[in-house]
Amino acid sequence: MDTVLISEVGPRDGLQSVKATMATAHKHAWIDALAGAGLREIEVGSFVPAKLLPQMADIADVVRHAMTQPGITVMALVPNLRGAETAIVTGLHKITIPVSASEAHSLANVRKTCAQMLDEVRRIVDLRRAQAPQVLVEVGMSTAFGCTLQGAVPEDDVVRLAEALAEAGVDEIGLSDTTGMAQPAQVRRLFQRVRAAIGERTGAAHMHNTRGLGLANCLAAYDVGVRTFDSSQGGLGGCPYAPGASGNVVTEDLVFMFEAMGVHTGVDLEKLVAARTVLAAGLPGEPLYGMTPGAGLTKDFVYADGRTPLDTRLLSTSGACA
Amino acid sequence: MDTVLISEVGPRDGLQSVKATMATAHKHAWIDALAGAGLREIEVGSFVPAKLLPQMADIADVVRHAMTQPGITVMALVPNLRGAETAIVTGLHKITIPVSASEAHSLANVRKTCAQMLDEVRRIVDLRRAQAPQVLVEVGMSTAFGCTLQGAVPEDDVVRLAEALAEAGVDEIGLSDTTGMAQPAQVRRLFQRVRAAIGERTGAAHMHNTRGLGLANCLAAYDVGVRTFDSSQGGLGGCPYAPGASGNVVTEDLVFMFEAMGVHTGVDLEKLVAARTVLAAGLPGEPLYGMTPGAGLTKDFVYADGRTPLDTRLLSTSGACA
Repeated sequence: MDTVLISEVGPRDGLQSVKATMATAHKHAWIDALAGAGLREIEVGSFVPAKLLPQMADIADVVRHAMTQPGITVMALVPNLRGAETAIVTGLHKITIPVSASEAHSLANVRKTCAQMLDEVRRIVDLRRAQAPQVLVEVGMSTAFGCTLQGAVPEDDVVRLAEALAEAGVDEIGLSDTTGMAQPAQVRRLFQRVRAAIGERTGAAHMHNTRGLGLANCLAAYDVGVRTFDSSQGGLGGCPYAPGASGNVVTEDLVFMFEAMGVHTGVDLEKLVAARTVLAAGLPGEPLYGMTPGAGLTKDFVYADGRTPLDTRLLSTSGACA
Repeated sequence: MDTVLISEVGPRDGLQSVKATMATAHKHAWIDALAGAGLREIEVGSFVPAKLLPQMADIADVVRHAMTQPGITVMALVPNLRGAETAIVTGLHKITIPVSASEAHSLANVRKTCAQMLDEVRRIVDLRRAQAPQVLVEVGMSTAFGCTLQGAVPEDDVVRLAEALAEAGVDEIGLSDTTGMAQPAQVRRLFQRVRAAIGERTGAAHMHNTRGLGLANCLAAYDVGVRTFDSSQGGLGGCPYAPGASGNVVTEDLVFMFEAMGVHTGVDLEKLVAARTVLAAGLPGEPLYGMTPGAGLTKDFVYADGRTPLDTRLLSTSGACA
């Protein structure tokens, strides 16, 4: 029985992409529900100044609360050394740094060139070594499959950047389809090349569903050995072509695909759909995406580990079609 | 450069699943637009008595009009010998017969056992031989990946039925995920087994997006040699868990996936999106699905055959998120 890690990024990637700010108590409840559903790695927010990202103003409190959940890896995004310093004192388990493969995106996103960001990563790794050697450092390589500013991103650039990051001491380097431009053949090729270059430091596939290819791209990554997948409950992050929206792969549908294939995720879909209700309560009126909650589980559905659902219907009323 | 055939089933599978009836003139215009966009096989309707399916009352007229389009295979569904007889006199190119792999579904859908339906197919093939030897006969095997009534459908049953249909003289046997229960590993396994049994008579993958796996399942089928894919413009057929809805794979997203992968479909996405406007005019207020029209094409997008789009934006205003 193969196993994958579903890395739930809704509380960071999702929440930062919606206009409303979810109240802290709701974040606590949502994270508790996600953990209760079996998610084992949760990106609970980002360490960015509150004036830039008010949705993340309570990040230290949210991390502290998440740390009370046993058995989960509590992760947060840090865009720079300052953020890493603030993050590390909370005692969280893992930080993730966004490093753009596209120079144009790097400048637009973090106001640094790729080379400058690489230096920043080195400084963060030095900080980790000196002050918190147990903290894991991941990089999610943004625009690895294309950039809306630059267009195509040379695959050689992606591979070279992965090598430089591995050399800098990063534990895990994933590829992110920030712009929803990835296609399955490219996904396979790029992950194969990166794995050939950096081996077991090859990390997560972070796919977007901007043009409907999210799950096909996840399947493609799985085919070439990727075993960690970023996704967002309800595909939170809204319409992928509205300003600032992210179009994340939907956790519910991703979990269904893997479990239906006999691949163990550890996630209970009934409890996950219950968590969806908690999310909806925290962001009233915010559209949630995904097909599985409303469709329910298939007749005779069995999880990869042999468990059977109590009730295949999932949502007691039909869900939204979106 | 690999090539696939996109078989557009919107005018049949889509239209039969919506409450409203599209006016004949609109059907003409929509089919013209689909053909103009480069679709080379179009399932224009079904030969079912009008009192059972009023949406298909004008089928003979629609076939006649479609036959005026050069370069397309005009196809229609026939559920029985009577329908085949009526279809053949129109001079259409191809008929498709739905044969259920699940006995329960066969009885519910056409009031025949699988064995009785196999006999009906034999009679239709005999008719074709006697009266219209140039007409192609396809079978789409319904519930090949599972049935909402029966549950799991034994893969052996699917393979044996494919063999029997090939022996009966059917030209092309595809597998249809009528209920949206298919998962990628199963799709690969089943198509591989069917191909091993019946070789080049292995036909189309007809996938549904009921739980979000539509394109992942299409990719899986492509991986094992499938080169014909049924899809519906705008995913017409509505909410997959509303009564009678079908949740077809969206043609726009499917074409995007293949072209982005360098696989030739012959479809022009800009013209396809123009056809979407014609569809919308014919069914005002009917929700249309798919991500690509609103997201637009990717920067620097090139079709598999080297063509470049005039304008990557596709829809001049943002499309619906669904």
